[in-house]
Amino acid sequence: MRMAMRGNEVGMNTVEKLQALREQMRRRKIAAYIVPTEDFHGSEYVGDYFKTREYLSGFTGSAGTLLVMQDRAFLWTDGRYFLQAEAQLSGSGIELMKSGEPDVPTLAAFLGKELKQGDVVGFDGRTVTGAFVKELKEKTAEKQVAFYGKRDLVDKIWEDRPPMSAEPVWELAVSYAGLTREEKLSKVREKMEEERADALLVTALDETAWLLNLRGDDVKHTPVFLAYMFITKRRAIVCAQAQAFSEEIKGELKKAGITLLPYESIEELVASLPAGQRLMADENKVSYRLLHVVSKGVEKINKPSPIALLKAVKTSREIDHIRSAHVKDGVAVTRFIYWLKTHVGKEEITEIGAAEKLEAFRCEAEGYLGPSFDPIVAYGPHGAIVHYSATLETDAVLQPKGLCLADTGGHYSEGTTDITRTIALGELTAREKRVYTLVLKGHLRLGAAKFVEGACGQNLDVLARQPLWEEGLDYNHGTGHGVGYLLSVHEGPQNFRWRMNDNVPCVPLEEGMVISNEPGLYLAGQFGVRHENLVLVRKGEKTNYGQFMYLEPLTMVPFDKDAIDVSLLRPSEKKMLNDYHTKVYETLAPHFTGEELVWLGEATAAV
Amino acid sequence: MRMAMRGNEVGMNTVEKLQALREQMRRRKIAAYIVPTEDFHGSEYVGDYFKTREYLSGFTGSAGTLLVMQDRAFLWTDGRYFLQAEAQLSGSGIELMKSGEPDVPTLAAFLGKELKQGDVVGFDGRTVTGAFVKELKEKTAEKQVAFYGKRDLVDKIWEDRPPMSAEPVWELAVSYAGLTREEKLSKVREKMEEERADALLVTALDETAWLLNLRGDDVKHTPVFLAYMFITKRRAIVCAQAQAFSEEIKGELKKAGITLLPYESIEELVASLPAGQRLMADENKVSYRLLHVVSKGVEKINKPSPIALLKAVKTSREIDHIRSAHVKDGVAVTRFIYWLKTHVGKEEITEIGAAEKLEAFRCEAEGYLGPSFDPIVAYGPHGAIVHYSATLETDAVLQPKGLCLADTGGHYSEGTTDITRTIALGELTAREKRVYTLVLKGHLRLGAAKFVEGACGQNLDVLARQPLWEEGLDYNHGTGHGVGYLLSVHEGPQNFRWRMNDNVPCVPLEEGMVISNEPGLYLAGQFGVRHENLVLVRKGEKTNYGQFMYLEPLTMVPFDKDAIDVSLLRPSEKKMLNDYHTKVYETLAPHFTGEELVWLGEATAAV
Repeated sequence: MRMAMRGNEVGMNTVEKLQALREQMRRRKIAAYIVPTEDFHGSEYVGDYFKTREYLSGFTGSAGTLLVMQDRAFLWTDGRYFLQAEAQLSGSGIELMKSGEPDVPTLAAFLGKELKQGDVVGFDGRTVTGAFVKELKEKTAEKQVAFYGKRDLVDKIWEDRPPMSAEPVWELAVSYAGLTREEKLSKVREKMEEERADALLVTALDETAWLLNLRGDDVKHTPVFLAYMFITKRRAIVCAQAQAFSEEIKGELKKAGITLLPYESIEELVASLPAGQRLMADENKVSYRLLHVVSKGVEKINKPSPIALLKAVKTSREIDHIRSAHVKDGVAVTRFIYWLKTHVGKEEITEIGAAEKLEAFRCEAEGYLGPSFDPIVAYGPHGAIVHYSATLETDAVLQPKGLCLADTGGHYSEGTTDITRTIALGELTAREKRVYTLVLKGHLRLGAAKFVEGACGQNLDVLARQPLWEEGLDYNHGTGHGVGYLLSVHEGPQNFRWRMNDNVPCVPLEEGMVISNEPGLYLAGQFGVRHENLVLVRKGEKTNYGQFMYLEPLTMVPFDKDAIDVSLLRPSEKKMLNDYHTKVYETLAPHFTGEELVWLGEATAAV
Repeated sequence: MRMAMRGNEVGMNTVEKLQALREQMRRRKIAAYIVPTEDFHGSEYVGDYFKTREYLSGFTGSAGTLLVMQDRAFLWTDGRYFLQAEAQLSGSGIELMKSGEPDVPTLAAFLGKELKQGDVVGFDGRTVTGAFVKELKEKTAEKQVAFYGKRDLVDKIWEDRPPMSAEPVWELAVSYAGLTREEKLSKVREKMEEERADALLVTALDETAWLLNLRGDDVKHTPVFLAYMFITKRRAIVCAQAQAFSEEIKGELKKAGITLLPYESIEELVASLPAGQRLMADENKVSYRLLHVVSKGVEKINKPSPIALLKAVKTSREIDHIRSAHVKDGVAVTRFIYWLKTHVGKEEITEIGAAEKLEAFRCEAEGYLGPSFDPIVAYGPHGAIVHYSATLETDAVLQPKGLCLADTGGHYSEGTTDITRTIALGELTAREKRVYTLVLKGHLRLGAAKFVEGACGQNLDVLARQPLWEEGLDYNHGTGHGVGYLLSVHEGPQNFRWRMNDNVPCVPLEEGMVISNEPGLYLAGQFGVRHENLVLVRKGEKTNYGQFMYLEPLTMVPFDKDAIDVSLLRPSEKKMLNDYHTKVYETLAPHFTGEELVWLGEATAAV
């Protein structure tokens, strides 16, 4: 909310901005201009420089696409943001398109209907993917539409645009990464060889950061830096902002045979690939602009970047560190839960205040670098809003009753955490306990899964949902996402989900992958429950029937026994819970003393 | 075995046949000639006319590919047939390639290595799919190989080749099918419209039989007839053997606007599609030859035939009939189990004899048309051979102890059945009971699955495997396949399996689909257990969280309580078993009297 106000305080208002953009469009005969939320790298969070959609529309949500035509303008966003968007768009003349509602067309379908023959559709070609434009082309095929992606028209009207971030890049020691950048580069080239690729274009920021063993601070909550990479059999080029690199790092890159070129030179590099060569570039990730400059005779290999999978499989060095990070995080979160349960109702604690307290506990740990995403501390009915983030306006005072959902995480030098605990602040209704326990059953069952090597998250997701599905209940999000090592808290390709999506391949779970296990249930207007541990995929026994795999819990924080209806647990589920709590006690006890230690003992005692 | 002997009794022996084929190859400068097991339609069973691989090699297994080169010959087959192939190939000079064994290359990889620059590879282009040749091309890319698919060279040397089957085609009344052929055709054209297809090429025999509401007898165990279809917006052409059609059926087809042309004319038809049109043809199903004759300017839509999915979703009329068929089948199989358990050890019963007895019980039912596949009655260690089929040489005498696995099925006018029961013939070991019960747990859990609409078999398969996976056990086959209505006992696209296969899309389970639920466990040299019911996918309750689905059991035959270790069942599993048995008793009791009825009551009493 604060950001939107800033946009409205300075210079033009939304109506004036749209008029200025339309003037730019008219000069170039552009009938419709698309402004998505993306940066040039498909990042989950984008830096201020890239917030063109927010600047133009005043809408501050994390997802949404603005379409400006000469006489009308539209903003597509999803259910999380309908209320917020309605408020923020009020008076702007921008019409809200509620994605997913019946009778609301997609942007592509809308354009297919509204455009006239031969119209020109414009966008900053760096902010949309090749696949996006492909779909647009298909859906508007009958209108013979032309695409204009060469110019960022918003840049021409945005006077006080913040500069592109160029925070200092820093080295992640090999003692943390487990592999040198030379070793990683050679693994990438092996994968390129398998695809007979002459060149690989890397646009995802976390992939470049992983490959180079470098980190930065150009994107909120994600220690990455703005860069592209272009890798051939003999060359490895990183296109980035030179001022972000120290002389020492520049020297290290040079030693590793890696060339540093200006950020913008990526286009020229891609364009210079000669005909007859094979370029590996994922249409679902790489921008339209970069795919567009590729020479005609170059053969495109439209496959996911091999770096995603390499990065997902953690090295044994990384795994050792990740376990340490989770001990530190477990101490902080467990201390927070004890504090919250013992202080609620005795002093005023709000959602934001509680999040700040948890952050303070995390800050006590050595090596803590900051949150891995915006903390969610959601009390009562707020817990039923999946992507709730407390604002000054909504910030609720916690009462000594009901459930408080806390989904938070941190970056440590030793890795990235992400944990959700739903905490009983006092007396609970039978319904609250029942829902808490049903979700816990699913969490425990998935966590205890033993499976044959080769199985994917799509095969296992049902284990988490079954206790809910049996009662006609469900949650409308995936059960788990991959987690990077001091990178994005959301990474692919591993996941737990059941929906099959043509654009998201099913990837076997490999030893060394880290995934969240976070089923939930949300009762609108009442309360929400989510239980989240991060788990590590491990090899178990090998029998005549195959190599079996299991999941090791990384997160070390008790579940709130005050909220469990033990009568709903099967004997096998009680054992799963007790085994986990035993491990939590053994891991955390050395870090606690006095009252806290006594409480930890009770909180983890067998049910 | 008997067939192989026939091949060897008449005319040339295998060595002479291969020499004759090589002479044909030399005349056409063909370096390598491939003889697969297929007919021209990708059928599971093939008629005698198509048994070129068996004729040439003497190997009678149901899967295998022969490769003949000038100085050597090779046969690829899978683990089911290693012993049999070794015996049957002995003295032929054909080398056995054990598919799936380490260090055994695939046919494509082998050719990629062995061929010389510019070599010609030959095959009957009607017996291999477009996708097969595509893979061959990729794997031999460096050798610039040419493909010759115009001639069936085996035909030139096979003097006493059986004629192509042309058994009478017969009408399946609309009272069974639920939809007229006109209605089906219009549904197919709707699907073509969605893909903007101008023409659809249908090669799968069961798809044509389904669409035309016709049946035949050209393929063992499958009431279909040899035919292709070519469907455009205005025309529907069936290419088949005119002599198989009565004047009455010819008249009915004409009335429905369907043209009958000669079987061979399909090539000309496909070739006549003008440039600029869009042809829907599945490369994984349609033959190389037919794809090869398509004009250059025709755009190919390489997608599964829409008929597969339409056919898989049974009409309510079909469903009513299918339930009746399962009552008839349940009576026969239950009577068989009672007979077997009460007669074993008192008279000599062999595996083949038992299968004949079961067939006799089935024959008592009105509307029974014959087996839907070769019956498997496998006693003791034979039960551990997944694709066991008793022969005169292996036919074991059943003893009053241990387990007997019976996997059989029938075609009725009212539909097709497929059922496996594992039967205790007397005393069992604790291990036998344990395995029987573990497999039953999985069968029951999958059978009781409740899931959200949109879920695929790949999401649910784990429910059947979990009790085994937890103990490091597994079975090396899918958990379930679709079943046709008086068509192939194996049909797609629905299934229960966990492995993701790029060529087998994940298809949501829709109301009206029939699938088998058949987990198993096989202890080589000891015994095997499999439990199979057919289930019908149904819509259940619709809640705020979505449309929920469940599985209705169609198969109505008790599981053998003598083999269950009840102590291994959870309360919920006992309830699933008891609920099923109650339904079995209620359904079958009206058809039984006297001792059989008393036994049925005991066999289905609660555990």
